[in-house]
Amino acid sequence: MADKRPKPRITIIGTGLIGASIGLRLTQRPDRNYEVVGIDRDRNNAKRAKHLNAIDREITSLEEALHQAGIVILAVPVAAARRLLEDIGPFLSEGAIVTDTCSTKAAVMVWAQEFLPEGVSFIGGHPIAGKERSGPDAAEATLFEGVQWALAPAPNAHEGAVAVMLGLIEQLGANAVYIDPEEHDQYLAAVSHVPLLLSVGLFRMVRDSTAWEDLALLAGPGFRDMTRLASGDPEMGRDIVGTNREAILHWLRRLQEELTTIEEATLRGADVITDLLTSTQLDRDTFLLNPPVRRTPDGPALPSSRDALGRLLAGGLYDKLKDAEDRIPQIGAERRQRKQLEEAEKRKDER
Amino acid sequence: MADKRPKPRITIIGTGLIGASIGLRLTQRPDRNYEVVGIDRDRNNAKRAKHLNAIDREITSLEEALHQAGIVILAVPVAAARRLLEDIGPFLSEGAIVTDTCSTKAAVMVWAQEFLPEGVSFIGGHPIAGKERSGPDAAEATLFEGVQWALAPAPNAHEGAVAVMLGLIEQLGANAVYIDPEEHDQYLAAVSHVPLLLSVGLFRMVRDSTAWEDLALLAGPGFRDMTRLASGDPEMGRDIVGTNREAILHWLRRLQEELTTIEEATLRGADVITDLLTSTQLDRDTFLLNPPVRRTPDGPALPSSRDALGRLLAGGLYDKLKDAEDRIPQIGAERRQRKQLEEAEKRKDER
Repeated sequence: MADKRPKPRITIIGTGLIGASIGLRLTQRPDRNYEVVGIDRDRNNAKRAKHLNAIDREITSLEEALHQAGIVILAVPVAAARRLLEDIGPFLSEGAIVTDTCSTKAAVMVWAQEFLPEGVSFIGGHPIAGKERSGPDAAEATLFEGVQWALAPAPNAHEGAVAVMLGLIEQLGANAVYIDPEEHDQYLAAVSHVPLLLSVGLFRMVRDSTAWEDLALLAGPGFRDMTRLASGDPEMGRDIVGTNREAILHWLRRLQEELTTIEEATLRGADVITDLLTSTQLDRDTFLLNPPVRRTPDGPALPSSRDALGRLLAGGLYDKLKDAEDRIPQIGAERRQRKQLEEAEKRKDER
Repeated sequence: MADKRPKPRITIIGTGLIGASIGLRLTQRPDRNYEVVGIDRDRNNAKRAKHLNAIDREITSLEEALHQAGIVILAVPVAAARRLLEDIGPFLSEGAIVTDTCSTKAAVMVWAQEFLPEGVSFIGGHPIAGKERSGPDAAEATLFEGVQWALAPAPNAHEGAVAVMLGLIEQLGANAVYIDPEEHDQYLAAVSHVPLLLSVGLFRMVRDSTAWEDLALLAGPGFRDMTRLASGDPEMGRDIVGTNREAILHWLRRLQEELTTIEEATLRGADVITDLLTSTQLDRDTFLLNPPVRRTPDGPALPSSRDALGRLLAGGLYDKLKDAEDRIPQIGAERRQRKQLEEAEKRKDER
């Protein structure tokens, strides 16, 4: 007698680069017992994702797409995530897991708390991956291979739901990293959001010159790399700025200070600039060869039980979960640590 | 009766990334009638280049390496090029061609004029190529494929010598672009030297933070790309700053202005930042898809005759030279153009 129950469902909302890359990896699994459905307000995106086999089916109604979904992945810019968090509540099943892939986390966590119904586990997520091109056609099943996936479970998220997320991230080839949402935003402003704005500033500086055509002819791979982020999705950039303004302004000012230091070094002559370039080269090479060691967890207790939802993705997804529990790093759960950072930066500013 | 004359010789001084990449391509040519010899003050570099077949022979004496050399390529940082230009004169053959690959051109042209003997043709060169890693082991025969190779013949360079250089650049797969040395330095400050310093500044900003270890853990491909140039050779960077200080300071200040504009946009809200990001994305995508059209030459006369040195690399190297003569672009030979640029930038500063 055939099993008439519907297959467990993973719903990807937003089938652009990130959503379609997640889908590609999940649908590739040969022994999977789940279906992957996709929905996108841009129907072309969803159709392309289906064509590329990044999703099993396109569904055009939000209600239908969320019907009996075990995991809902919001792979959209922050503002769209807010609208979705407001809208999806009535359609979610009891016990559903909702996660996102947004570039900022603090605002998303607040909205999830505000809008999602009881009985749903929200676990904020952010895969630190990206590409010059966006959209489903740029998607790759290996996009998340070896990348850090920042994870911020809501206070009321079920232990089993966290376990499912850890398994999902492992399935995608990424490393889960617990992080406090506000710390996430502070840190990402430095290593991602300000670099994006810097890339935009450098491109504009050259583009706005009256010598643009000659400059463009002489622009080599260095210029291309340094302005890659300026080709990113403007909507995503707008939402990043909109939800992380304070941290971005802090780091933009720090960067201006660094540029002033470099300007002074340029004026002061060969020895000063040589020291600066040599120590930076050494530090960066060390960073590439021996990345900082991940700290062992000292944060929220890790899941020890696996509930019904946990079994949703059974069949290998949890295989290494026991191991994983010992090595999920925890970034700065302690408020104290951030205070120390701010104080240190302040002292630096005053120097 | 065997031909007892020595093979025509190309001498590469400096067998790092650029020198060894040139050598790799030149030695790959099956029907060549020339030998490629290399010399490096770091003997390990030369040995590696020999091992990789980037040179036919390592020679340790400058005098011997230059003996009967038809083309001498100085593939070294600017300061080393100066010392070499001072030293090599007595060892050069009448009619030899000397070229360089330095990142700045004005100072090199002055030194060549000052130190090289009459009867030697100096043609300043700069292939706009690069990689994260340096040294001969990073060399690739295809490093110059499709790249622009800025070319600045000295006023007394022989027409035939320019023809040889054009053939050499074509052989390497690159596109020759005539450029005034001072304009070269102005333009490269914007698209290469300031991006390098920016990359250094961004890395230092993050590295100097007390939260460095957490920041490094969360640093993704964007941060890696944006700081790639900071891993470049510090000696090269020092020489770039030392020989192009004024232009670098000009563009560093322009960049600070752009960052201030972005800071203001960040404060002013979603519409302003969206406009800024959208127009930049559009402009950069246009730049990538439809790079500015190269202008037809209006500069120095192109070679029409080929002398004895011209025949040095005969056997295919000149095959397409006639075509090439019609399409070598000329960047801003007119002093007037640069004045216009400077005035426009000044007006911008005053706004």
